[in-house]
Amino acid sequence: MAIVLGDNQYGKAETRLVRVVRDGPRHELRDLNVTTTLAGDFAGTYLTGDNSGVLATDSQKNTVYAFAKRHGVDEIEEFALLLARHFVTAQPTVHRARVSIEEYAWRRLGDHSFERSGAQVRTATVICAGDEAWVGSGLTGLVLLNSTDSEFHGFPRDPYTTLPETKDRILATEVNARWRHATVDGDWAGSFVAVRQALVDAFVGTYSFSLQQTLYAMGRAVLERAPEVVEVRLSLPNRHHLLVDLAPFGLENPNEVFVAADRPYGLIEGTVLRDDAPPPGLAWW
Amino acid sequence: MAIVLGDNQYGKAETRLVRVVRDGPRHELRDLNVTTTLAGDFAGTYLTGDNSGVLATDSQKNTVYAFAKRHGVDEIEEFALLLARHFVTAQPTVHRARVSIEEYAWRRLGDHSFERSGAQVRTATVICAGDEAWVGSGLTGLVLLNSTDSEFHGFPRDPYTTLPETKDRILATEVNARWRHATVDGDWAGSFVAVRQALVDAFVGTYSFSLQQTLYAMGRAVLERAPEVVEVRLSLPNRHHLLVDLAPFGLENPNEVFVAADRPYGLIEGTVLRDDAPPPGLAWW
Amino acid sequence: MAIVLGDNQYGKAETRLVRVVRDGPRHELRDLNVTTTLAGDFAGTYLTGDNSGVLATDSQKNTVYAFAKRHGVDEIEEFALLLARHFVTAQPTVHRARVSIEEYAWRRLGDHSFERSGAQVRTATVICAGDEAWVGSGLTGLVLLNSTDSEFHGFPRDPYTTLPETKDRILATEVNARWRHATVDGDWAGSFVAVRQALVDAFVGTYSFSLQQTLYAMGRAVLERAPEVVEVRLSLPNRHHLLVDLAPFGLENPNEVFVAADRPYGLIEGTVLRDDAPPPGLAWW
Amino acid sequence: MAIVLGDNQYGKAETRLVRVVRDGPRHELRDLNVTTTLAGDFAGTYLTGDNSGVLATDSQKNTVYAFAKRHGVDEIEEFALLLARHFVTAQPTVHRARVSIEEYAWRRLGDHSFERSGAQVRTATVICAGDEAWVGSGLTGLVLLNSTDSEFHGFPRDPYTTLPETKDRILATEVNARWRHATVDGDWAGSFVAVRQALVDAFVGTYSFSLQQTLYAMGRAVLERAPEVVEVRLSLPNRHHLLVDLAPFGLENPNEVFVAADRPYGLIEGTVLRDDAPPPGLAWW
Repeated sequence: MAIVLGDNQYGKAETRLVRVVRDGPRHELRDLNVTTTLAGDFAGTYLTGDNSGVLATDSQKNTVYAFAKRHGVDEIEEFALLLARHFVTAQPTVHRARVSIEEYAWRRLGDHSFERSGAQVRTATVICAGDEAWVGSGLTGLVLLNSTDSEFHGFPRDPYTTLPETKDRILATEVNARWRHATVDGDWAGSFVAVRQALVDAFVGTYSFSLQQTLYAMGRAVLERAPEVVEVRLSLPNRHHLLVDLAPFGLENPNEVFVAADRPYGLIEGTVLRDDAPPPGLAWW
Repeated sequence: MAIVLGDNQYGKAETRLVRVVRDGPRHELRDLNVTTTLAGDFAGTYLTGDNSGVLATDSQKNTVYAFAKRHGVDEIEEFALLLARHFVTAQPTVHRARVSIEEYAWRRLGDHSFERSGAQVRTATVICAGDEAWVGSGLTGLVLLNSTDSEFHGFPRDPYTTLPETKDRILATEVNARWRHATVDGDWAGSFVAVRQALVDAFVGTYSFSLQQTLYAMGRAVLERAPEVVEVRLSLPNRHHLLVDLAPFGLENPNEVFVAADRPYGLIEGTVLRDDAPPPGLAWW
Repeated sequence: MAIVLGDNQYGKAETRLVRVVRDGPRHELRDLNVTTTLAGDFAGTYLTGDNSGVLATDSQKNTVYAFAKRHGVDEIEEFALLLARHFVTAQPTVHRARVSIEEYAWRRLGDHSFERSGAQVRTATVICAGDEAWVGSGLTGLVLLNSTDSEFHGFPRDPYTTLPETKDRILATEVNARWRHATVDGDWAGSFVAVRQALVDAFVGTYSFSLQQTLYAMGRAVLERAPEVVEVRLSLPNRHHLLVDLAPFGLENPNEVFVAADRPYGLIEGTVLRDDAPPPGLAWW
Repeated sequence: MAIVLGDNQYGKAETRLVRVVRDGPRHELRDLNVTTTLAGDFAGTYLTGDNSGVLATDSQKNTVYAFAKRHGVDEIEEFALLLARHFVTAQPTVHRARVSIEEYAWRRLGDHSFERSGAQVRTATVICAGDEAWVGSGLTGLVLLNSTDSEFHGFPRDPYTTLPETKDRILATEVNARWRHATVDGDWAGSFVAVRQALVDAFVGTYSFSLQQTLYAMGRAVLERAPEVVEVRLSLPNRHHLLVDLAPFGLENPNEVFVAADRPYGLIEGTVLRDDAPPPGLAWW
């Protein structure tokens, strides 16, 4: 029996970058959080501390800032592709690079004035290995709620089941979605708008018998609306809103007064994809 | 020398309440976080464990939910007044009550569908003591940024000063504001909209030589725009955006590429008020 | 009616400092988070952007680091005093300085190896104004739990009271304590150890009829044990542990299985002091 | 082309459980956060809202509490096994169950008094599928620091490399470790103590030329010390401590004064395993 090194990777997490374009009086603003991860031939540093192949994480950070100046930052998928392609060629030891970017949204208030618009975050993840590349997009922090048109019943009643069946409840979730593109070029901005709208429309428009059903409807809507997307992964916490018992105070509570509970929460996860989707390769690395 | 009990208070923090109005197909939604605090004649429980005058914090929570059903929730200042006035009469031992409410904003997507709209939180704090009451409003989580029109120079250079003077920098902050009303009734919704707009307009419109100057301009704008407000307190973190040195990469950086720093941050706090403002009394308890 | 500037202050928040003493093979480590706040004659910058009296917050940060090298960091009360006294003399415009420090504890593992020991944080706050100074110490993050010897009953039952009386419950809290010293010099390290032990011993040793009673016992124990302390302020969240109803599963639950609830929580706050304590002056600024 | 449902799973996240054993005056305390996840034949609810096979997440939560009473909670690996084995037999639709538990440590202060001891969290993850089971253990929140005996040099200098080589730096990390056991029974408590000590000893005892080297040494030490463990996965953030430039103040800084930086941070991840380890199966699901 011997002890061996298995899978490994390293990189720089959460490089915070704000890029301003100021070609005239009307400025543009991009606010990103960039994480770079490299894999390849790095056994030397693990086994003997030989760093001759290790591109320093500090250099990865510098690259993010220098590229932001030299190439600008337009759509985050493009910027991630640019960085990932650079890293797999920068050092012969780097065989794979993953670049994940979070983008924080700002609303314009004036030529050079902006307001952060909400908790929603747009994401992109690009993986490069040799000449191949995979592009994923996503979003987090989109919180949606239907105050009716949600039922939950017909579930099995085992000895530990006490939950009453319901024909009317609040359904609320914080959407965490990632989707895989068929190709490495596209109209990233337009695609994001379309996918986001499909997610919202499906949540709003689905008369729901389970959050699972709503999840599938959301994934399906994305694929129907966005032909460039081949697979959607959704992680939906079920943010429970518990009906308050007001009977002790002589009051009825016909779905009007709720506790928004913190924990525990349901967690529903699922994938919706085209049956002819290309194999994922390293897309979900 | 003896050991004595000094100031004390107690209450229930962070009662999470979601109130749905469903009189027809078009629902209304209010999403609140309510904290109640009582002071009065409670020495008994501290000194001997005699709870005969202690309104249980669980009862305070129940009151929030029951009132939400019985009276509905319209503007949070009104709901806080209702609760605070109740508590000072509920038990003879309660001499003062403070009710603080955070309201989370939702954007309508449909008759019964909503999306959480951003990190901004509207707040209200009401204090009642006997027949007197004080009403404060506020907001947190409003993040603003100007990408130019901000200078900082002319400050003293002591032996520990290394900061270069600048004629152009990013100015960014997360507004934390509270303001005191002259009276206990008013158009709370309209007032909030006006104050919020005054804060934003002043931030956007002020050519700034210091965040202090911007703070004063924001407070002043509120008082000019909202005659019902007599005092504004602002706490503004200076969210530093540090210029990245790109010279090692042969690149200039004319205020285009920044690090958004987490810590440390400047913290600028100030009060702006009318010189004929009534005395605050217990308003800031 | 005119609009005027009221109370104001500014400073640098959360300067993170790690100080290593390496005079020999056995290193010492101090891990601090320092916040400095200045008040004085700063109306100019608010009203007109005149920064001629404004000691830059960046200079305050530099001072923290330079003083850490020049004077070393021993007890945080001493380091805060050193900084606060410096700031009130550094610029004639600075009339008051407050220096607040959080210290994170590390446990020694070897000559130069350490492990962070827990969530508990030691704090100090020093205020200087002219020749006067006030020293406060404190702690946060000390979480204590008694699994019995806690009752709660005898409270009034108003129309919103549903809480059953109990002769046995879990009592748990996260201690947030600050205490004021009689003088500006002392055995800070020894005093901290004694006060912390008094808080713990009183929590453990008090058969409790309310968290208020426990709070008072804790404050009293501090004053009895530490003659150098004249006033203690305690803020104790009541971290509710709710008994789970296991009857539907044919099980009894004699105080054995609990939900640790997040929100809401009770919040009990109180001051315990000597009746001959000197007036607080600016101690609680 | 058709749209199809891919991988999916659901469960209850973060069920907070405190279990007290009170057979005599000396109580025992277990403080857990339990997450259950099920996979199997659930297409019905996604596609048509047919919940006839869906064990409600509320029932999963109830099962956690009922089992805590009926069977007690000893080692978390055992409790997770008990729950996971139950779920795969509870409903024919459940083909796989994963139970993840976090345990928060408490230090005894008395017969029924306890103090939370630190940020460190012990974890266990058990997967069951039919008759097979996999057991993993882990820990998070262990923060370690060496103030010397860490170098970093010899790395390639590409056009974006500015980091100076160093022969002496602080090395600090927050250990996030998971390890896989060869079998489903064992001395879980003893194993955890041994593995934790091996991690700490290797961090302390390794003269480090890279955090990667330290990671490998830590994994290797676990496998050498704990024969029951076949694979270790480590995720180590490199918590950078930046040397402060004190030259502007006429001071040298021979590795004495540091900024503890928040972001960005390096992130080093790696697996160390026996070359005869059994295949992982579903161990890392």
